[in-house]
Amino acid sequence: MNPPAYSALCATFTRLYRYQHLGAMVGWDQATMMPPGGNTARGAALAELDVLVHRTLTDPMLATLLQVADDEALDDTQRACLREMRRDWVQASALPARLVEAKSLAGSRCEHAWRTQRPQNDWQGFLANFHDVVKYAREEARALSQTSGLPPYDALLDKYEPGTGSATLDVMFGDLKTWLPGLIRKVREKQTEEPLVLAGGPFSIESQRALGVAIMELLGFDFSAGRLDVSTHPFCGGVAEDVRVTTRYSENDFLRSLMSIIHETGHARYEQGLPRETLHLPLGRARSMGIHESQSLSFEMQIARSPAFLALIAPTLRKHLGAQEAFEPEHLARLCTRVRPGLIRVESDELTYPAHIMLRFEIERALIDGDIDAADIPALWDEKMMAYLGLDTCGNFQDGCLQDIHWPTGTFGYFPSYTLGAMYAAQYFACIRRAHPGLDAGLAAGDLSPIFDWLNENIWRQASRWETVQLLQRATGEVLNPGHFRRHLQTRYL
Amino acid sequence: MNPPAYSALCATFTRLYRYQHLGAMVGWDQATMMPPGGNTARGAALAELDVLVHRTLTDPMLATLLQVADDEALDDTQRACLREMRRDWVQASALPARLVEAKSLAGSRCEHAWRTQRPQNDWQGFLANFHDVVKYAREEARALSQTSGLPPYDALLDKYEPGTGSATLDVMFGDLKTWLPGLIRKVREKQTEEPLVLAGGPFSIESQRALGVAIMELLGFDFSAGRLDVSTHPFCGGVAEDVRVTTRYSENDFLRSLMSIIHETGHARYEQGLPRETLHLPLGRARSMGIHESQSLSFEMQIARSPAFLALIAPTLRKHLGAQEAFEPEHLARLCTRVRPGLIRVESDELTYPAHIMLRFEIERALIDGDIDAADIPALWDEKMMAYLGLDTCGNFQDGCLQDIHWPTGTFGYFPSYTLGAMYAAQYFACIRRAHPGLDAGLAAGDLSPIFDWLNENIWRQASRWETVQLLQRATGEVLNPGHFRRHLQTRYL
Repeated sequence: MNPPAYSALCATFTRLYRYQHLGAMVGWDQATMMPPGGNTARGAALAELDVLVHRTLTDPMLATLLQVADDEALDDTQRACLREMRRDWVQASALPARLVEAKSLAGSRCEHAWRTQRPQNDWQGFLANFHDVVKYAREEARALSQTSGLPPYDALLDKYEPGTGSATLDVMFGDLKTWLPGLIRKVREKQTEEPLVLAGGPFSIESQRALGVAIMELLGFDFSAGRLDVSTHPFCGGVAEDVRVTTRYSENDFLRSLMSIIHETGHARYEQGLPRETLHLPLGRARSMGIHESQSLSFEMQIARSPAFLALIAPTLRKHLGAQEAFEPEHLARLCTRVRPGLIRVESDELTYPAHIMLRFEIERALIDGDIDAADIPALWDEKMMAYLGLDTCGNFQDGCLQDIHWPTGTFGYFPSYTLGAMYAAQYFACIRRAHPGLDAGLAAGDLSPIFDWLNENIWRQASRWETVQLLQRATGEVLNPGHFRRHLQTRYL
Repeated sequence: MNPPAYSALCATFTRLYRYQHLGAMVGWDQATMMPPGGNTARGAALAELDVLVHRTLTDPMLATLLQVADDEALDDTQRACLREMRRDWVQASALPARLVEAKSLAGSRCEHAWRTQRPQNDWQGFLANFHDVVKYAREEARALSQTSGLPPYDALLDKYEPGTGSATLDVMFGDLKTWLPGLIRKVREKQTEEPLVLAGGPFSIESQRALGVAIMELLGFDFSAGRLDVSTHPFCGGVAEDVRVTTRYSENDFLRSLMSIIHETGHARYEQGLPRETLHLPLGRARSMGIHESQSLSFEMQIARSPAFLALIAPTLRKHLGAQEAFEPEHLARLCTRVRPGLIRVESDELTYPAHIMLRFEIERALIDGDIDAADIPALWDEKMMAYLGLDTCGNFQDGCLQDIHWPTGTFGYFPSYTLGAMYAAQYFACIRRAHPGLDAGLAAGDLSPIFDWLNENIWRQASRWETVQLLQRATGEVLNPGHFRRHLQTRYL
């Protein structure tokens, strides 16, 4: 028997979990299935749901229950659950209901228009909606900052990776800046000598989809509790009991959809691996978005771009896409580790990816802090793309600052999760490799169990039992150590 | 400016409309997209939503507002809206929250299991879940009966066609019984002399889908605000701003999917034709399920099975399915009006359809009244199928009492809407034909506007402005007159 106040909290958070189920599924539908005419009503319905969740969390009775439960005799697990409940309550009660609804509506409107504005390269049209999105994000950051005492942008970061502030990110990116540009240069010089065998398309959507499904099955995705569909921007949505992976296909580039599917399958296995018995409580959900990205990047970078895995799946590629010289394991490995600075974050290689994140981190922090306005973004983008990757993006908004779904939906503070995730993942695999010296030989022979067992035991099953820093320390024996990421890149690329 | 209490009611009902949006979309997903593993969580989320809607409607403040608004200076339209708000309130406040949730969960569980039990002909397995569904439906009927003063089964009927009780249905079906069996016999004798040219399949799903889309476009379906998908049981779901039509395909029978698509398109046009400015209020929704079925049957029976329409679409059939003798208009017309008693309601012809409804009406009334138990259904089904249609269904549950989605989901009192709809539709078309003597010639030439204009003006645009009996009277100049249905059948089939 749970103590009474804690029990009452569990009942309320179970109700919230069910409300969020509705939002997650309807959000998935909005991105994958919904015809354009449905968007206004959809936006209103989702905003109403946000208000409902907010109202439920800010009910004065909940505050009382949290206080009472704090003095109840709780075991460690219950106390961890209470900590996560309190986190939700703190974040909700910092925001007025009016702001929650206005922010939801503005994001929904801006994102929907962005879908057509992006292909039309229509920055000015986008800006008209985006002003409101920024306005509400700043209000949110200020309100969260007042409650938490964190600087405004850090208060947003805290939503996605609790405990990691911009000071940590400054150190991390500051360190990256000292060695990454040099590494990229060295690798590119080395790679000019390595001939690349390109795969000749077109590859039909159906065959790419069949390949994606086969690889998802190899990676342990449970199709009896999930789906694979198409959306403009690949994502992993739905709920833990029904995980919705999406991708997009290009007939000329099978690798793009394949790698995005593998990436999202990493997110999906995390959700499918969360312990079923506590899913309905904050204790049972994924730890953070940084940890979430560490799962997708474990799959996409650590596993999928390794020569062993590429050797394993080469026959599957030939089966679905036809036999080609490019599908020989050594050519695949070169293709998948080719370093080439490009405009698009989600298509970028492992080495240049952090530069894309650094750029976004710097811009969005300045935007939230009010140091720049939305209209200043393109110029800043151009300047940083030139500085970090030597690329000219002037006037090319659709492959520049309009490329991501995050900002149109009002999601600021999320981007750093990608680089944190890449670093966590490198740290996991250093650990796994120490325990399993024969990892790659096993992988090439189809044995993924050491990896899945480790992730399941150390990450998936732990859900939100620990704070991120504890989770990482318990799993790997140390706090975040960017050295693993650097060593991983040097080993793979030099 | 609306008066204050009425304004407050509008705000609450707008909120309810948005909650129902979530339920409608997630319900559509459950039937079309959801993998089986997602069902338990989905059922819990939908039940939670039912509880939320119920709680919102039974908030004591709402009762007070309804009372105060009644004394406010409202115009006729506002008063009609208030009448519909009160209807929702009466139906919700009759039921305890516990029952609402239990009923929702039981229906969700039973329907989901039914999807696999039906193909397996597993009546006993079905019965295990169905007992609870019946139990809660009886509780609901009793509770609604106590509030409304109607007999229990009539209280359920009233949800779908307010104002029409089982006494009316007894008269209607009593009348049908006097002439329909004789008419069926006569028509079948006449048709034995008419050779039938059958269409030779298989017809690929893709070509059938393309045909369906083309016919939906011809019938004015707005694809920018709706979709066509696949489900086990065809339905028209979603919301008025985003209408989701479903069908199912059989490679050997193009007519089945085509006619089901046309049927659902009738429902869809009603939703798409509801006035946009009042969609969020009870005033703005479809009048009743009887009127809804009158739209689907106007499309499927009055329009689509007419020789003129079949002549119009014959070239479209040839385009998508290839040229065949069977696609000559006169052969199509014979195929679409062929009378042949069959086991499946949704595949039955216009003449034998009412017998399927009569059977269900009699069984479900006895079930709700407690005169029979769920376990008695198959024997009664067999007996009535033999009596009304001369067909043996012993032991064939999947094509017998397991064939429909209504009972598994706890939907009792809905079936009569189909026959009411058929009668309303015949009455509309008698009226339209009087005003447009050249209707069929126009139809054959592709001019559907007299029909759509009439339906739009008299039904769609009226939404819930009037009670059903007034709506019908204003539209056609008389109350329900089954003579039109009889004359329609005699004209078409003799």
